[in-house]
Amino acid sequence: MTYELFYWPSIQGRGEFVRLALEEAGAPYVDVARESGGMERMMELLNGARRPPFAPPFLKAGELLIGQTANILLFIGQHHGLAPLDEADGLWTHQLQLTIADLVAEAHDTHHPIAGSLYYEDQKDEAKRRAADFVANRIPKFFGYFERVLGEREFLVGDHLTYADLSLFQVIEGLHYAFPRALARCGGDYPGIFGLRERIAARPRIAAYLASGRRLPFSEEGIFRHYAQLDPA
Amino acid sequence: MTYELFYWPSIQGRGEFVRLALEEAGAPYVDVARESGGMERMMELLNGARRPPFAPPFLKAGELLIGQTANILLFIGQHHGLAPLDEADGLWTHQLQLTIADLVAEAHDTHHPIAGSLYYEDQKDEAKRRAADFVANRIPKFFGYFERVLGEREFLVGDHLTYADLSLFQVIEGLHYAFPRALARCGGDYPGIFGLRERIAARPRIAAYLASGRRLPFSEEGIFRHYAQLDPA
Repeated sequence: MTYELFYWPSIQGRGEFVRLALEEAGAPYVDVARESGGMERMMELLNGARRPPFAPPFLKAGELLIGQTANILLFIGQHHGLAPLDEADGLWTHQLQLTIADLVAEAHDTHHPIAGSLYYEDQKDEAKRRAADFVANRIPKFFGYFERVLGEREFLVGDHLTYADLSLFQVIEGLHYAFPRALARCGGDYPGIFGLRERIAARPRIAAYLASGRRLPFSEEGIFRHYAQLDPA
Repeated sequence: MTYELFYWPSIQGRGEFVRLALEEAGAPYVDVARESGGMERMMELLNGARRPPFAPPFLKAGELLIGQTANILLFIGQHHGLAPLDEADGLWTHQLQLTIADLVAEAHDTHHPIAGSLYYEDQKDEAKRRAADFVANRIPKFFGYFERVLGEREFLVGDHLTYADLSLFQVIEGLHYAFPRALARCGGDYPGIFGLRERIAARPRIAAYLASGRRLPFSEEGIFRHYAQLDPA
């Protein structure tokens, strides 16, 4: 089966967590909205599906239409060996993913603390305050947590790669893009997860994907945005 | 087995979504941090568990320690008949729960748009801006979505109650507490989900719970807070 991934065509965004899992799994998929006529199909499903997603990304797997990033990963994980089949380990993997999702949402709100419906320029003073707190308090709390969870091991859960490892890679990538100065200052504190980031990037399928045209660049339209005033020296 | 729920002892917060599911399931549980010595045990597990939760709530089920509200509900749903066992319906239920979780996070940020580490009073101007957008744009988007999903049916998923129904009840309750004026203005637009709220409240086990001392009151320490300046006429 060829999956159909539906996500905004010009940004990594939350769709990227799904792309990374599909790429690592070697699962055939079409990034629908990047194809001709794809945006129309995406909007039709958003507006007309029997079980409509609230927002992209969503994945069409045969008759199944699955929304919410962590939920899509729950599905891919179970069907493509990217999550343990054991209940306890599966729940733990999903728990880590949901914690990563919380970090992603907070990273987004650093540049949109007031409203997604407003431009950054309309909330940049508030963004400066929120980003300062995010860098000072939230990144250390989340990174410290994942560093503790990872310990000396190769992967977050047991001895095998899971979708949570891929997602943690993506968050660290995104935060490096958005807050290069802050991350350069704290990198030495998190040797485990920063090492994980490098190991994920070097996996053959991920390395091939990152070097391909399928990997969109980070930009100031996505979740992780670099605004110099939010990342002071 | 008697479950042990760990959550802050003086607020409903995210723990309330778990309490409602346990109460409806008739599952025996102890609300640990409300018992003598319970806070110490909660902090010990947060700091010392082999697989530590990032934050409360978390549920101890025998040897399992499960964190992240939606993940706990995934577990309770499967073990206590509060979610479909079929894969497609189970994923759809979880998808709805994760969308509710997004709404909960946005409701929280109306009073804390800058930082959870600051008092409301330190960000009340920003809160006023964010709450205005939340009421004008986000509540209609989320409520309109769930109204569409529910349609004319009795429950969100199929013909049976799920944890997503209980959680939607709780969000509507919370938003009524926080934004009574805004909700009074828009109530007529959402007859389906507002009816669902009443049906859930009238279920025997939920009604008994809501009338008991186990149900903590809403307050200005929780997720849903009533500040008159955030809910203007």
